[in-house]
Order: sequence, then structure tokens, then C-alpha cells
Amino acid sequence: MATVTDYIDSHKEQFKEELFDLLRIPSVSTDSTHKNDVREAARFLHEKLASLDIDRADIFETDGNPIVYGELVTDESKPMVLVYGHYDVQPPDPEELWETEPFEPTIRDGNIYARGASDDKGQSFTHIKALEAYLASDQSFPVNIKFIYEGEEEIGSPHLVPFIENHKELLACDMVLISDTAMFAEDTPSLTYGLRGLAYMEVEVVGPNRDLHSGVYGGAVANPANVLAEIIAQLKDQNGVIQIPGFYDDVRELSAEDREAYQQLPFDESAYKNDLGLRALHGEKGYSTLERASARPTLDVNGLWSGYQGEGAKTVLPAKAGAKISMRLVPDQDPKTIARLFRERVESLAPDTVSVTVTEHHGGYPAVTDLSFYGLKAAARAFDDIYEQEPLFTREGGSIPIVADFQKILGAQSILMGFGLNSDAIHSPNEKFALKDFYRGIRTSAKFFEFLPEYS
Amino acid sequence: MATVTDYIDSHKEQFKEELFDLLRIPSVSTDSTHKNDVREAARFLHEKLASLDIDRADIFETDGNPIVYGELVTDESKPMVLVYGHYDVQPPDPEELWETEPFEPTIRDGNIYARGASDDKGQSFTHIKALEAYLASDQSFPVNIKFIYEGEEEIGSPHLVPFIENHKELLACDMVLISDTAMFAEDTPSLTYGLRGLAYMEVEVVGPNRDLHSGVYGGAVANPANVLAEIIAQLKDQNGVIQIPGFYDDVRELSAEDREAYQQLPFDESAYKNDLGLRALHGEKGYSTLERASARPTLDVNGLWSGYQGEGAKTVLPAKAGAKISMRLVPDQDPKTIARLFRERVESLAPDTVSVTVTEHHGGYPAVTDLSFYGLKAAARAFDDIYEQEPLFTREGGSIPIVADFQKILGAQSILMGFGLNSDAIHSPNEKFALKDFYRGIRTSAKFFEFLPEYS
Repeated sequence: MATVTDYIDSHKEQFKEELFDLLRIPSVSTDSTHKNDVREAARFLHEKLASLDIDRADIFETDGNPIVYGELVTDESKPMVLVYGHYDVQPPDPEELWETEPFEPTIRDGNIYARGASDDKGQSFTHIKALEAYLASDQSFPVNIKFIYEGEEEIGSPHLVPFIENHKELLACDMVLISDTAMFAEDTPSLTYGLRGLAYMEVEVVGPNRDLHSGVYGGAVANPANVLAEIIAQLKDQNGVIQIPGFYDDVRELSAEDREAYQQLPFDESAYKNDLGLRALHGEKGYSTLERASARPTLDVNGLWSGYQGEGAKTVLPAKAGAKISMRLVPDQDPKTIARLFRERVESLAPDTVSVTVTEHHGGYPAVTDLSFYGLKAAARAFDDIYEQEPLFTREGGSIPIVADFQKILGAQSILMGFGLNSDAIHSPNEKFALKDFYRGIRTSAKFFEFLPEYS
Repeated sequence: MATVTDYIDSHKEQFKEELFDLLRIPSVSTDSTHKNDVREAARFLHEKLASLDIDRADIFETDGNPIVYGELVTDESKPMVLVYGHYDVQPPDPEELWETEPFEPTIRDGNIYARGASDDKGQSFTHIKALEAYLASDQSFPVNIKFIYEGEEEIGSPHLVPFIENHKELLACDMVLISDTAMFAEDTPSLTYGLRGLAYMEVEVVGPNRDLHSGVYGGAVANPANVLAEIIAQLKDQNGVIQIPGFYDDVRELSAEDREAYQQLPFDESAYKNDLGLRALHGEKGYSTLERASARPTLDVNGLWSGYQGEGAKTVLPAKAGAKISMRLVPDQDPKTIARLFRERVESLAPDTVSVTVTEHHGGYPAVTDLSFYGLKAAARAFDDIYEQEPLFTREGGSIPIVADFQKILGAQSILMGFGLNSDAIHSPNEKFALKDFYRGIRTSAKFFEFLPEYS
């Protein structure tokens, strides 16, 4: 029998083909027409787990998309690692900007291009393959492991938290292992110890009971699109400071150490600007770009619509206008409180010439992992071993609300072992994942399991 | 042989069926995929004119949609009336809000429901039928007549003005007769002597070179949708006053007589509000609702788009955002000047964190017809005769830029003999035209021709 490393090396092509099969399933959870595709992705992962010689592999039904579960206990004295991932993906739109089909994975320049390649099918699949390598090799699996894959991450995990609350014993663990973040840069692994939270809102402004002719009524009737723009403009000031009373009340200010750590990170602002094609960056006054993107709260319009969007000109005074607006949160902001403050602020800005409705999409708590946690140390060594480079410790701007939930419900801290890159375009057209990082991810995962017992 | 009135009365059903055939042609000029339908509507009108015993009926090709022409000279000492209309229509969207198909005319509650029923197929068809009634009756046609129907009114008549300039002799006339406006209220005919002009602009704000993940980049990068909202919000103040330097410089202030005339108009503000389903109206401080809607310039967002507009939540920081914004103009504002001032203002508001592009769609000059013009007197008597009510003299908020062009190029004033209603929803779903006003329109047109020689 082969070693774990040998097995991984000799099965690269097969691992890639399996991932491609998973990426071909358009499991878009935000779009209800893809309901069956989402289930198909769950079935796929369950099959992969069930084909391994482990204690159990199940599909748990929820009121939404199913949860895939797997478990292998080798020695109860060893640490129990709960691997978390998600098999749902963002919608591919705008589809016309994809160079190749979003659900037909294609290799270009050493990257796998497909929706979900990095977020999170490619990254989370590494741990199943690492386990498979142990079970097929001459090395026994060094720890205990559980898997939980959900299909609603991109819609705010509405059924995952109740599931965890109802299955505390099933999911009991010493730590959660998640690969759903980015490395600091190419060949520069990093362990993310902080994540922002999220409050995602939708605002609808309704004026007249029908679209009107802008010549006949223009000037006499408040225009919902103008009103919406005026409301949005009043949510931030010129210095990028969010204008919602109470918004900053629970924000933990960055400590001197935090700011020093940020200073240590290798960061080329001019390369960052060039990559984005921007002449100038913009953000909250008094903070660096990296701080703004990961340690400070934000408010961004994610979508905007009203009236005529087609070719040419239509002289319509639209009956309604809408916007999706989300806020990234930092410790100790509470998404529920922030959603309420947002609603109050928007309602207070609404003139009586229109009706304004504020609805809440998903939210999530921010989270920070203890830098001295032993799991983090084992993960750092695994990265060092495979990438031949000590990982950086970073905070990320994105949200994985479940990290805060695992902490709260299971008392388990998370290891965010990201193999992606910020340039992976994970919510954009042409999402990609470097093929070499898919393979290094599998090897790093295997090394993490090998090193972990030493640190416990 | 029958009288004109008898002929009209006995051919109602036939006239309606002919109009229905015209309404079935989806001649949407703003959408290039309807190019052939637009031509089909031109062919239809040409056929109708050619079937009459008149001097000529032609289709003139342009670089855009064709112009349909017809002519009958009976007695050169009599006035020459040039009838103008347009056979193109607005797009039907949002189509899902139509109760019946936009291009399958349906009678409900005495109204013809179809795109173009009122604007302008139904209204402009009346004059062909009035002429037909004379030619088939025992009465000789009392004046001389020319017809010009264009297919680009809804896209700003780009080829009509050059055509008029190149065919001044062909189109020479004593007045232009146009039915493309609304009556003041049901059974309350009105002659529109003032029209607003138009400057229609599009603004595009471009930020990063791709859609970004709002978690990863949010806070560090200017969001084009937020920037667009901030720009729009700065184009008007809280009193509804447009904040574009120089915008009001050429605005002719309302005279005491003008304001007195507005006071005379029967207007029920509470019914107006109820019809629109609004709790409160809004407009420029210091002016009445009717003044705001017809005698004062405006600025309205007609369309707005950015990022994710689908179901649920997508955490995208959009690469771009756009808006269609139009301004209604009053004498003596010049649409070209206003377009330039708008562009300068928007560009001055654009931060260097994004690129802002301002493009110009069609524009049109405002116009006012002399209240003492003899054509207007004949038209008033025709209305009085058929509607048994003296018409009101009103100004309208909408734009018929060609009225200013006819004045400038042919030296001809326009008679705006509208048979529509403001509730016709002419640029909205469920556009309608009262069947009785289609018939009264034909009879009023016939009476106008009968009375006109007396006043000349």
C-alpha cells in the first residue's frame, strides 16, 4: 500500500474529474428554479462520503436544502474535527461576461474556471479527498472527523443554525475546519482569524400606483427613483462614515497591536488598484485600505432597479424603485440590532410622498478566533510544510456567519484554512480556483490531520 | 349619397376594425428587434391613404423608419392643413402588468385597450377617416390637406426634422393639425397651446473592472451604485429646485395672466391624488400642481440599474451603475444647452474613484401657440359642436418636439386637437383610448375642416 502523499499524487487526475462533476451541478441556492440541482449536489457529496469506509454518511432533510453528514471515530482520545463546507453556489449572472460556461469547468492557465470552483466546492472537497487518501493508504487516520455540508450558505444558512442547535451531540467537536477563505496572496498561505458579519437589507420605494408619463406628471409627483437615490445618499457621508444613528456603538476599536499586525502584512496598494482598474481607492477616513476591507464595518449597495432599463429612452416616471443594501459588521456589532437601526434610519428618511418598505435578508455575526488556539498552530505547521512558507494571520472582510454560530452553540473555535485567492472572482463572472491549490489543499488537509494530535 | 355625419355613423364598426388592425402591429421604435413591425405600420397607413381618391400617397424612405405622406388639393384659395401623426409606439414593458395582450386590442368598459390606442395610432387615425367620410359623401372636402406620419416619435424623431428641412415646399401649409394630446378631463375638450420640451440623458458610473465580492472589497473601493445615488441626490434640493447651474436662466416666468388661466381650470387635487394612490404630492416650492406638471421644468429619473436585481441576496459590489434621467423644459429653455449644463454638473459631481459617462438621448424644444390664431378658433368651434362644450385652453407637461420644429422650419403654428385622456396610461401598461372619443374625434375633425374656411 502507498503512503498518503503517494496516493494523493497518483490520484490527481481522478480528484479533478470528481470535482468537475460536482462543479457541473448548477446548485444556485438563491434561485428557486435550481432547487433540484441543489439537491443533486447534496446527493453527490453524500455518495462520495458513503463510498468511504467510515462510520456513517447521511442526508438530513430540513425545511430547505438538505444537510450532508459524515462521521469517522478512530480513537476517542484524539481530537474531533468537524469539517464544514457548502455545496450551494452564487448565481452566475451576469452570464454574458463568462468566458466559458459557468457550469462547464474549464482549465485555463492552470486555473479551474467554474461557478463554485473556489466558493466552496473546490475548497471544501479537499478534506474528503484527504480522508480518502488515509483510508486507502498504509497510514491510519490520526484524528476523529465529522463532516457537515450545507446547501444554503449563499442565502444565509436559514436551516443550518436550527439543525446545529437540535444536533449538538451529533456535532460535538473540538474544532471546526473550514476552507472557504482566501490566502493572502499567491503562494502566501494565511490563516484567517477574523471575519466580518453581515446585515443584508432590501429597500422598496413605492410612489404612484402605476408607471406614469414623465411629461404629464413629472414635476407634480415625487419620483420613487429620485427618492431612493436621496435616501441612499444620506446613509454615508463624504468621509465614508455610515450615517445611521447607533451604527458604531458596538464596534470594537482596533487595538495598537491589531494595527501593528496590519502594518506587517505585505501589501502593494498600487498593484491592488491596478488589479481593479481603479485610479483611486475610497473608504472610511482614518483607516488603511486593508483595515477598511476587513476590520471596519461597511455599507454597500448590492443592487439597484427602477423604471426603464432597456435600449434607448422611455419617458416613464416609475411607480417604484428598489435597492439591495448590505452592511459588513465587525465585533461586537449584532446583525439584528444593525438591521433594526438601518430600518429606523431609512424609515426616518422616507418622505410622506412615497411608501418605503425595508425587508431583511440574511444576517450573520462577526467572529474572531483566539490566536493561541492549538488547532491554529497545527494548521500553521501544515501550511508551512506544504507551501514551505509560514502562514500569515489575517482578518477577512467577508462573512462566514456560521463561524460565530459554531462558537456560540458548540463552543468550538474555527480553523479557517483557505486555499483560494482574492482574485478568484468568487461572486463574479469567471470564478476560478488554481488547480495546484486544489492539490496543495488536499495535501495540507492531510498534514493538518497528521500534526493535530501533537498539539492537543 | 350620405352626409359626412351619416357616413361616419354608419361606418363605426368598420373604422374600429381598421384601427384594431393597426394596433395589432407592434411598431415599437425604441426596440430594434421590431424594425419590421414599424415598417409594417407605415405600409398599413400608406395603403389607407392610397385607397382614397386623393392626389398622392407615398412612402418616403429615410435613414431610419419611413415617412408616410398624402396630399389632396381641392382649391388653392382655401387653407392648407398639414396633419401630423406617428405610427410608432412605446415599448409595452412591464408586460406582465397588462391585463390583456398589449398588441391584441380589447374592448373593456367602452375603452380600447392596446399599446398605441391613444398614443398615437387611435388619435391620429381619426383624420384619415374624416377625410374618407367627405370623399364618400355628398359634401366636397372644404379645405386642402396633407398628411405626414412618422415612425420615430418615441425615439425623438431623428429623421423627421431633416426630412421637413429638405421638403419645405412639399410640406408648405397654413397650420399643422396634431391629435396626440389629452383632453383636460372626460367630456371636457381642451386645446393645448403650450408643450414642454425635453432633454433625455443617460449616466453611467463605472468603478472596478469587474463585479467584486462585497465582503472582500467592501469598504476599500468606491461603490458605483452608491456614487450614482449620491450624484442623483445632488441634482435637486429639498424644495424640488433643480441644482444645475444655469438651468433656470432661460425659463420664461409665468405671467400673472398665465397663473390666472391656471386658476380657472377645474382641478380637483384630492381626486388627482386618489387616482394616483398617493398620500401627498411633491414638487417645486411656490407653484401649484398644474403649474408644476406643465409650466415648470423638471428632472426625473426614468430608469436605474446596478448589480443584482434577482430574488434573494447576492453580496456583490457592482462594477457599474446606470440611470436614465430626463428633464422637461419650458420656453425658452434650449435642450442642447440644458444637456450641456447637465453633463457639466454630473461630471463636476463625479469623484475620481469612478469613471462617469454622460450620453444624450433625444431632446426637443418647448413650444407655445398664439391664442389668437384663427385655426385655434375653428378647432374650438368644432369641439363645441361635437362635445357640446367650449374647450379649455391648456398647457401640457409632455413634449411634442416637432411642434417647435414645424414653427421654426415651416413657419406653421400647430392645432393640438387632443381626444385622449390623462388616464389613458399612454406610456404605461394597459394603455387605453375611449371608443366614444375615437368616434367623436372623427366627427370633430370633420367639423374642423368644415368650419376652417370661415375663419381664414
